[in-house]
Amino acid sequence: MTRFLKYSGPAAVALLAMAAPLAAQDAAAAPAEASEHTIWILNTFLFLVAGFLVMWMAAGFAMLEAGLVRSKNVTMQLTKNIALFGIAAIAYHLIGYNLMYPLGSWTIGTDETGGYLGAFGVAVLEAVGVGADSADDIAYASTGSDFFFQLMFCATTASIVSGALAERIKLWPFLIFVAILTAFIYPIQASWKWGGGFLDSQFGFLDFAGSTVVHSVGGWAALAGAIVLGPRIGKYPSGGGVHPYPGSNLALATLGMFILWLGWFGFNGGSQLAMGTIGDAADVSRIFANTNAGAAGGAVAALLLTQIMYKKPDLTMIINGALAGLVSITAEPLTPTLGSATLIGAVGGIIVVFAVPFLDKLKIDDVVGAIPVHLCAGIWGTLAVVITNPDATLSGQVISIVVVGVFVFVVSLIIWMILKATVGIRCSEEAEINGLDVDELGMEAYPEFSHR
Amino acid sequence: MTRFLKYSGPAAVALLAMAAPLAAQDAAAAPAEASEHTIWILNTFLFLVAGFLVMWMAAGFAMLEAGLVRSKNVTMQLTKNIALFGIAAIAYHLIGYNLMYPLGSWTIGTDETGGYLGAFGVAVLEAVGVGADSADDIAYASTGSDFFFQLMFCATTASIVSGALAERIKLWPFLIFVAILTAFIYPIQASWKWGGGFLDSQFGFLDFAGSTVVHSVGGWAALAGAIVLGPRIGKYPSGGGVHPYPGSNLALATLGMFILWLGWFGFNGGSQLAMGTIGDAADVSRIFANTNAGAAGGAVAALLLTQIMYKKPDLTMIINGALAGLVSITAEPLTPTLGSATLIGAVGGIIVVFAVPFLDKLKIDDVVGAIPVHLCAGIWGTLAVVITNPDATLSGQVISIVVVGVFVFVVSLIIWMILKATVGIRCSEEAEINGLDVDELGMEAYPEFSHR
Amino acid sequence: MTRFLKYSGPAAVALLAMAAPLAAQDAAAAPAEASEHTIWILNTFLFLVAGFLVMWMAAGFAMLEAGLVRSKNVTMQLTKNIALFGIAAIAYHLIGYNLMYPLGSWTIGTDETGGYLGAFGVAVLEAVGVGADSADDIAYASTGSDFFFQLMFCATTASIVSGALAERIKLWPFLIFVAILTAFIYPIQASWKWGGGFLDSQFGFLDFAGSTVVHSVGGWAALAGAIVLGPRIGKYPSGGGVHPYPGSNLALATLGMFILWLGWFGFNGGSQLAMGTIGDAADVSRIFANTNAGAAGGAVAALLLTQIMYKKPDLTMIINGALAGLVSITAEPLTPTLGSATLIGAVGGIIVVFAVPFLDKLKIDDVVGAIPVHLCAGIWGTLAVVITNPDATLSGQVISIVVVGVFVFVVSLIIWMILKATVGIRCSEEAEINGLDVDELGMEAYPEFSHR
Repeated sequence: MTRFLKYSGPAAVALLAMAAPLAAQDAAAAPAEASEHTIWILNTFLFLVAGFLVMWMAAGFAMLEAGLVRSKNVTMQLTKNIALFGIAAIAYHLIGYNLMYPLGSWTIGTDETGGYLGAFGVAVLEAVGVGADSADDIAYASTGSDFFFQLMFCATTASIVSGALAERIKLWPFLIFVAILTAFIYPIQASWKWGGGFLDSQFGFLDFAGSTVVHSVGGWAALAGAIVLGPRIGKYPSGGGVHPYPGSNLALATLGMFILWLGWFGFNGGSQLAMGTIGDAADVSRIFANTNAGAAGGAVAALLLTQIMYKKPDLTMIINGALAGLVSITAEPLTPTLGSATLIGAVGGIIVVFAVPFLDKLKIDDVVGAIPVHLCAGIWGTLAVVITNPDATLSGQVISIVVVGVFVFVVSLIIWMILKATVGIRCSEEAEINGLDVDELGMEAYPEFSHR
Repeated sequence: MTRFLKYSGPAAVALLAMAAPLAAQDAAAAPAEASEHTIWILNTFLFLVAGFLVMWMAAGFAMLEAGLVRSKNVTMQLTKNIALFGIAAIAYHLIGYNLMYPLGSWTIGTDETGGYLGAFGVAVLEAVGVGADSADDIAYASTGSDFFFQLMFCATTASIVSGALAERIKLWPFLIFVAILTAFIYPIQASWKWGGGFLDSQFGFLDFAGSTVVHSVGGWAALAGAIVLGPRIGKYPSGGGVHPYPGSNLALATLGMFILWLGWFGFNGGSQLAMGTIGDAADVSRIFANTNAGAAGGAVAALLLTQIMYKKPDLTMIINGALAGLVSITAEPLTPTLGSATLIGAVGGIIVVFAVPFLDKLKIDDVVGAIPVHLCAGIWGTLAVVITNPDATLSGQVISIVVVGVFVFVVSLIIWMILKATVGIRCSEEAEINGLDVDELGMEAYPEFSHR
Repeated sequence: MTRFLKYSGPAAVALLAMAAPLAAQDAAAAPAEASEHTIWILNTFLFLVAGFLVMWMAAGFAMLEAGLVRSKNVTMQLTKNIALFGIAAIAYHLIGYNLMYPLGSWTIGTDETGGYLGAFGVAVLEAVGVGADSADDIAYASTGSDFFFQLMFCATTASIVSGALAERIKLWPFLIFVAILTAFIYPIQASWKWGGGFLDSQFGFLDFAGSTVVHSVGGWAALAGAIVLGPRIGKYPSGGGVHPYPGSNLALATLGMFILWLGWFGFNGGSQLAMGTIGDAADVSRIFANTNAGAAGGAVAALLLTQIMYKKPDLTMIINGALAGLVSITAEPLTPTLGSATLIGAVGGIIVVFAVPFLDKLKIDDVVGAIPVHLCAGIWGTLAVVITNPDATLSGQVISIVVVGVFVFVVSLIIWMILKATVGIRCSEEAEINGLDVDELGMEAYPEFSHR
């Protein structure tokens, strides 16, 4: 693994003559640039690899949430996470994908004046063995890979919601909300930016991989739900203060964080949307390095800050600090230097440490800290784009944050209230006390281990 | 991440002029198609990425099974899963690979008349730094990558068996069976299809990634073992009925399912065997999208069906439903539309919900549901090929299912019976009651946590 | 997935005519070799994929260690593993990367006479959208991908240390050591080989992916720490013998092992540093296959040996056997045959089974077996290079093992002693007995589960 002196060892000649790349290629035979097909294939490959990494984040959310709830609600949290992922896949396929990417065929609006509502119709993949002539977009990548990648973003949005509302929401109303979120809410607002809609074309909104489009959207939907749902019994005692409900399995929560950290390389790196030129490949590399730096900044900032504030480092804050660092760098993982990326992530980690108790003061009960991590750090990350990317304007970013926020929060609030008024969203007091696992599902996650 | 209007933002000009791909390449300098070497490298890269994803499925089975057995047998289940993976690597290297891929050098039969028994000999990788002239097959991919990828399929077959026989089989007889399975049984029947043997050349059998060749084979071997081994003590009380033995850790089981879901993208996607042309890359993309759709269909079907049948969603059924969806789409992940893939997977999920109690009626004790998931859904998936792929014939599929099934079941049954008659396959009643961990291994998986 | 008879099925004509790769490309239009840019992009892609696999090893160490410590110290172990990864990212960015890869700009020494101390300065990535003309090294890969990949190796070294010193070291002194290790100790000695320093240029030292440069370095630093820190209370009772402290969660430990096994494909495969030619891609494939063989050899050897020696297979030994197999094959994963790789790994597994009790005889308390796995097997793997690689000399290997060992051990010992004399490195006796989680962090990992 010797880098620039790779072939300098005294006895390395024989082997290396055999193994060395063809350094002196015939320039006439092999042109410098990758061919058109190779670029398309590399773009497609990037989507597939990045897509499976983002898919893996579904497991990360499941483990994070299973670790941070009490053991009596673990089976329910696991059930929700699998179910939401399956529902998102179906909803995005049937409705979401074309709503998000109308490719100019807007139901309301146009690319030029601003698109507001995308196209209705089922996602259709390219034919088996499609050729260059019939590929949907020879300058881009295969539609199948794009669908796969984009679906995982949609599912991530739903995953964010499930953690905040844990331990007291009923299963089916939650899943109905997930279906609406992944079929309509997420894709519609995502079209405004990534489908080339009005935030993109009229306001110059920049959000590389979704600090706003994905993370704050999940956060807003969760916030609306948490308000309508109310806090868990006993969380905010009448005598004041906040009753802690420690997570039942911090090893799982840590595993979840590492899974998310890993998946985020796909989340941000794949959002370059291309890997077939020197410039694109170098950019994806920058993004990987900066994404890691953002996470590191968030984790270390939360570590230091909790040591200073509480005299003891707080593992759940460090976990959420790392995630907030990742959310913060997501709106612009490309233009920062490594140092800037670390600092942008660190601010995200600091935000979490203050936002968690602040939400408690408002008596908004967010079981896993999803709102501080995804909404608060998501807003910060979106604003921070202007620091390193000269193409971003503060007004464009603020307007877009507000527009997306108002849309998602208001629509979510209305849906949660309709669900509350009709089927009801909150489990019975008895079920909440006994645990959703026994009362709602009849199945404990850890049946052999005694509970306190 | 704006797709088709990527460069439309009002202020995006400066940055994008820098970052944009070279849209207008000199066509004379860079031809459209990928070069021969690039195709070979991309095929190789696909095998390596897909291969590590399938390798990861070994962890998925380990976690799934560790989560679904009782805590007193967890160490044993973990030990089996690591050991079987190591043994499979050695057996496939020494014997299995060339038995499966004789490349025409059949011990019994020929490519033309039908191959029945492959070649004997140790797997040999290409030389270090091999060049284009000496590569084993310049139209394919590196032999090392092919071996790596195929080995993981072989190991998967063994993983399937371990779950069904958990909680009462002795370690060493199980490992002896694994050695025979991975050295002989799996490779021989796999050669009939994927090595170009008689099911491929004479019957037009189509099994893209192994609903039959991998999953039903694991299922048949497990079924034979479960019959010879008999059910766990107390599972089917003399008074009738079925005694449930709940899994000890559903968080781990869910993690296992997510790992398998992730790994399956490699399992099915890599089975395209090529990534170097527009058509192949688009096909791999279709496969990824369809594989996810199949899993989603299976999970959601099991969710809905258990809600309807039992009034409560059943997490273990949802987990197995997702896996059955994956098994179902494995025989043909390419030709279905997203909608068809979802439905094919959904039928798999439904099958599991009915097959699990049906097996219990037969008093066949399958601890983790491996037979419903891998055998029953595997048969369904193999039949379902005819729905979307016009090249498949129902007769070719049925004959192949029967031929493979009879071969694997009968041979496995004989081996299990020989093992039973010689070394014995079942642990003592005392060990079963106390748990295999303490009695057979002297090591508990969770020594500090009290048991009920 | 039929390999060489892919298109032989009787009814496969129609579909395959559509899907088949363009077998007969116009050779004039598409040259055989990959273009210069394609090679660079493929090398970069390899680094990114391999890099995220190695990053994933951080989760592997976290799970392995969380599973092998007692439950009262799990939160601390998780905290350390996240924190060390964040600190390593910052330290390597600010100092380590350029110390390790001075690219000829040595502070002490030169490429020709031997480099001893690299360059000081912050790591700088290539500009956004860099072109071929301004890429740092058009014959290599993007700097961002190289930084990302190399950082993960540095972080791995720190992860190795945390396990050995678990259950009694204070958090902050450990993290201070990690900062020094990742900023200075690891990069300086790594530069001697991989930066083209004196071990590479003067002694012909061969260490492909770091049996010595990474694993033994972590092992030496851990050994120095374990000696200065002393064993856990009660580990070596005054009456003689060794008191076992069983790991609290062997499922997590097994998961950690599988994560590490997976990540190691990136660790060793990425160290080929290139993927853009037939030779390089075939070599990466060999490395993947051999790495798996080494792990399998180590696991099976430990399985058999513990059965023979103790009459019962020992899961923790099998886990460490697999890891030792991986460490053993890391110095030379390319040149061995599959059979040699299996045997080299098997010797690693055997070494672990003997080294663990040997360390106990010396009353060196290594909680997770990091020293046997990473130091002992690392030395073995480095020596074993001479068996299969004719370019390696025994003297060059031995000298390098000794030079690196003395440097790392002595410097680490001094730092640990300074830390001990100043801030103190060992927690109070009370904290050790109560568990670091409650006393140092105020947070239990499994708060709802009763302890023995």
